[in-house]
Amino acid sequence: MLFTVTIATRGAPWKLEKDKNFSEWFDGLLFSANILDNRYPVKGFSAHRGWGFRIVKRIIQMLEERLEETGHEPVMFPVVIPEDAFAKEAEHIAGFQAEVFWITHAGDSKLDRRLLLRPTSETAMYPLFAYWIRSHADLPLKVHQSVSIYRYETKATRPLLRMREFLWNEAHTAHTSSEEAEKQVREGIGIYTEVFKRLGLSYLLLQRPDFDKFAGAVYSVAFDAWNPDGRVNQIGTVHNLGENFSKVFEITYEDVDGNHKNVVQTCYGLGISRTLAAVIAQHGDDHGLVLPPEIAPVQVVIVPIPYKGLEKEIYAYSRKVFDAIKNAGIRTILDDSEKMQPGEKFYHWEMFGVPVRVEIGPKDLEAKCVTLSRRDTLKRTTVSFDDLVPSVQTLFEDIMGNLRAKSQEVLEKSIVDVADVKALRKAVGGKKIARVNWCESQECADKIKEEAGGGEVRGHRYDVEEKPTKPCLICQKPASRIVYVARAY
Amino acid sequence: MLFTVTIATRGAPWKLEKDKNFSEWFDGLLFSANILDNRYPVKGFSAHRGWGFRIVKRIIQMLEERLEETGHEPVMFPVVIPEDAFAKEAEHIAGFQAEVFWITHAGDSKLDRRLLLRPTSETAMYPLFAYWIRSHADLPLKVHQSVSIYRYETKATRPLLRMREFLWNEAHTAHTSSEEAEKQVREGIGIYTEVFKRLGLSYLLLQRPDFDKFAGAVYSVAFDAWNPDGRVNQIGTVHNLGENFSKVFEITYEDVDGNHKNVVQTCYGLGISRTLAAVIAQHGDDHGLVLPPEIAPVQVVIVPIPYKGLEKEIYAYSRKVFDAIKNAGIRTILDDSEKMQPGEKFYHWEMFGVPVRVEIGPKDLEAKCVTLSRRDTLKRTTVSFDDLVPSVQTLFEDIMGNLRAKSQEVLEKSIVDVADVKALRKAVGGKKIARVNWCESQECADKIKEEAGGGEVRGHRYDVEEKPTKPCLICQKPASRIVYVARAY
Repeated sequence: MLFTVTIATRGAPWKLEKDKNFSEWFDGLLFSANILDNRYPVKGFSAHRGWGFRIVKRIIQMLEERLEETGHEPVMFPVVIPEDAFAKEAEHIAGFQAEVFWITHAGDSKLDRRLLLRPTSETAMYPLFAYWIRSHADLPLKVHQSVSIYRYETKATRPLLRMREFLWNEAHTAHTSSEEAEKQVREGIGIYTEVFKRLGLSYLLLQRPDFDKFAGAVYSVAFDAWNPDGRVNQIGTVHNLGENFSKVFEITYEDVDGNHKNVVQTCYGLGISRTLAAVIAQHGDDHGLVLPPEIAPVQVVIVPIPYKGLEKEIYAYSRKVFDAIKNAGIRTILDDSEKMQPGEKFYHWEMFGVPVRVEIGPKDLEAKCVTLSRRDTLKRTTVSFDDLVPSVQTLFEDIMGNLRAKSQEVLEKSIVDVADVKALRKAVGGKKIARVNWCESQECADKIKEEAGGGEVRGHRYDVEEKPTKPCLICQKPASRIVYVARAY
Repeated sequence: MLFTVTIATRGAPWKLEKDKNFSEWFDGLLFSANILDNRYPVKGFSAHRGWGFRIVKRIIQMLEERLEETGHEPVMFPVVIPEDAFAKEAEHIAGFQAEVFWITHAGDSKLDRRLLLRPTSETAMYPLFAYWIRSHADLPLKVHQSVSIYRYETKATRPLLRMREFLWNEAHTAHTSSEEAEKQVREGIGIYTEVFKRLGLSYLLLQRPDFDKFAGAVYSVAFDAWNPDGRVNQIGTVHNLGENFSKVFEITYEDVDGNHKNVVQTCYGLGISRTLAAVIAQHGDDHGLVLPPEIAPVQVVIVPIPYKGLEKEIYAYSRKVFDAIKNAGIRTILDDSEKMQPGEKFYHWEMFGVPVRVEIGPKDLEAKCVTLSRRDTLKRTTVSFDDLVPSVQTLFEDIMGNLRAKSQEVLEKSIVDVADVKALRKAVGGKKIARVNWCESQECADKIKEEAGGGEVRGHRYDVEEKPTKPCLICQKPASRIVYVARAY
């Protein structure tokens, strides 16, 4: 059956101009491409619509497959957390209490104790981890869940990028030793790296400064994706929790010698909503979405171009092309409706980001060919019917290679070395990511934020060692880190 | 890699006796087979564990595929609903207000207006439906979502069967006419029927009496699955909403003649948690779970039986068997760990409900055979290596046929015609479903409930016309319906 898409654009004559006004472009596209409806009557909460939610489901599936291949068990913990469990780890509650939603009543009754909606699930999961883990034979324990998260953001909310309800996947692990936990941090980073690579995203992998680590963690590593408006978008984080939580939740195991020890833990989260935002923001253009083939709900759209007297033959040939592509396991639709002209259909499916369009006109019919148009470059090629399927598959690879390279190029161009406060201000104000020598003092970080108009010290590179080359940008004392400064969502 | 399962039974010496004590059997199995952990520190909320959640994901996928094939768009609406939207439809709020969770605060602030956690999503979705639907060209609108639902149950909670947080899929549709809505009710019933058939479940399809229809519906049809303890388990419901909601939410469309009309709506929900409960309760036995192959996380387990001097050969042959089954696209594991004896492995995987076990001992090795043991009957057969894959596939079909037939047989045997109050009491008290002639008055239904020790009039058959044969069981006036009476979850 034909894949149906409701066109939400009816009567909405805005222009898609990504470079001119990113926010308008982004919000307009979310609306028109059936991704998110922002008119839900509660601030910071939106309805996910069909086209967008199909993409979301594919991103989740791609991630979950990798997590389960590496031994993470799927679980689902309740959305409500009792106040006493939440309050156990001092740094954790301090970090989150200002932004939790509280349930105080049910029906007409006041609850005995308040419940909060999960802002993250450490304090939901770890009381049960204490039951699940008894001996070294129970370790490592590795679980994951894809759920909605609730945070009462007090800053202005933004669709997908900063919501009060958003989707993420969180993984939680427990181990016998710090070495094992360290290895797990690297495994988590590896899984996310693979997913982001398949989505063609580029980012900086940064170890956060101590003052910005996850509340309760020993240290945090984060994936900061670039965004066209110069703000970075944190799409994933990986935390080494040490024994901070296992001590307060009394998660212990008996080792081979019969000694009871605390487990060492890690947790990591990949923001599904923010990853979708990054895919849209990094790859999209003035025609609309540009989707990586792996997550595109429709990978190939076939548009017949009927020609007087040859309509029947062109439709029949189009059906044959459709069958060949479909039988190869490619998600495809034949758009043979007569409600739109071929040109309108081109615009329509370009907006929805369908990676490849097949056009079939009288010349194609005659020569037993088809015309392929790739969404990323909008370039056309003609291939013979016999080469159809391999050509489409090669195009998918070419598209991914191109998206990845273009995204990486933008990231690299957006990084600017700055050696003084004026240059810092200019870089961050000019939508760049500033690279700065820093002494690691909180004071200088605060000063940097002030000078950079809200640009924050996001951390130093985790994957590449970068040695300071100059004194601290602010205090001029010896610098111990090269760090990246940008405004953030 | 080997599929890992944490064995939760360690040191739990209870016996699985389904017929003797269903509740103990059910709760014990949920715990031991890694389905649900009921020790979460909030009443009515449980943690889903790895084995069970893998099954859940397969049930959801099976259902969603059918919904999307029939044109239902996947969506996801917020978990919070503002009080004013919830209060719009009078019957709806009356039906649900006693059991909703209220969010009143966020961080340190009191919210301007209270938010509730979705007890069902009509009042979340329909304000946006009013934006989405303008013209007859926008209809039918069909959406679905798989989400968690929150109801403050005041009766005793029961794992999977009656929780304060549970999983379901809900579909919502809008149409131009009552006829279209009627057709949609039948489509919804057809989709659920197909899913339940593939799970081998049996149930009564009943139109609920007026006093028990969904709050806000014109009428409700429900799937009541039998449960071994005699209570019925409502696993799905389909509602014709008429214009009840479209009037209060002002969901109108312009017809071909330019007239503005209210849409006619339907909605239907399939309880994922309760469907899982039904699969466990209807098919399970004293050895543990019995899973339909389509939803089994592992479909075939291979257990080598090492024989002195032939260990190497047996393991090598087992690996060959594993590869052959895996390459056929069957989910399989080779349990070659040396921590358990073969007999222990048999018990272990039987408890987890793996449909087929392949045993490989010295005789199998010598004859180039394998021994297949099917989980439903525990019967063994020997087949040659060359017949391995087709034999396993045939076994899957045989298992499903058997599960379906056995379940249907139990249902049919549990229905008892009763003609007086004494027989009613005996039937319902004896874990049966009573078939009763009824005059359709609320008074007589109340009296039935009283006499039947809580057994309720669940409704008359929707799919089969059954004409009353006797006067009303209670008032002896002419009966207008044959209805089914049972206690319910």
